[in-house]
Amino acid sequence: MTLDFAKSDGLVTAVIQDAATNRVLMVGYMNEEAFRRTVETGFATFWSRSRKKLWLKGESSGHRLVVKEISTDCDQDAVLVKVESQGPGVCHEGYQSCFFRTLAEGEWRVTDKQTYDPSQVYQS
Amino acid sequence: MTLDFAKSDGLVTAVIQDAATNRVLMVGYMNEEAFRRTVETGFATFWSRSRKKLWLKGESSGHRLVVKEISTDCDQDAVLVKVESQGPGVCHEGYQSCFFRTLAEGEWRVTDKQTYDPSQVYQS
Repeated sequence: MTLDFAKSDGLVTAVIQDAATNRVLMVGYMNEEAFRRTVETGFATFWSRSRKKLWLKGESSGHRLVVKEISTDCDQDAVLVKVESQGPGVCHEGYQSCFFRTLAEGEWRVTDKQTYDPSQVYQS
Repeated sequence: MTLDFAKSDGLVTAVIQDAATNRVLMVGYMNEEAFRRTVETGFATFWSRSRKKLWLKGESSGHRLVVKEISTDCDQDAVLVKVESQGPGVCHEGYQSCFFRTLAEGEWRVTDKQTYDPSQVYQS
């Protein structure tokens, strides 16, 4: 299960893809412990670069990502994780996918509809 | 077209997805110049972290990636680039996708077939 964590300061890039639709849902980063927990628990777990801590996706929202398949790339510094998403969306802004803005005529435009109200899910 | 290049030392993560099949083909990294060239030329261009130079994908192999759509994620430190691949594969090891190894019982196993012979494409 060796991955190249050295190339990016202890992290590999993790692309999260919906196993049913093949939509790319988000990009996160995993250190060795996050990757081990992802494999062992079957729920996608990341290293939060901003909060500098392990982050079980869905720990606040309940929208966990159930791992269906994990691939790695030729130089083994990235993983592709196919998941079944528990909940209406992975993005904390209320969208199914974090990639809800598309480039058109030099501007990023929101090209997706919210699937849930984040204020109802992430309560302070 | 603002992206957050500051979070990862001047780079954003670029996920390359086949526009027709939605297969994830590779993960690369773009600095501001690579991103600008990708948008302006319509061919995916990366910053090679190992060679420390701009890298027009396909400059050696001829297997360029024609940009069909570019999305960005909520915190704008990653882009998702849907492409049409010119050629049989994006991976320099001869596969359609760089993600040709899948985790099974704790081991990475090659679960894809080569689509071309890299020794015929990358000549020294």
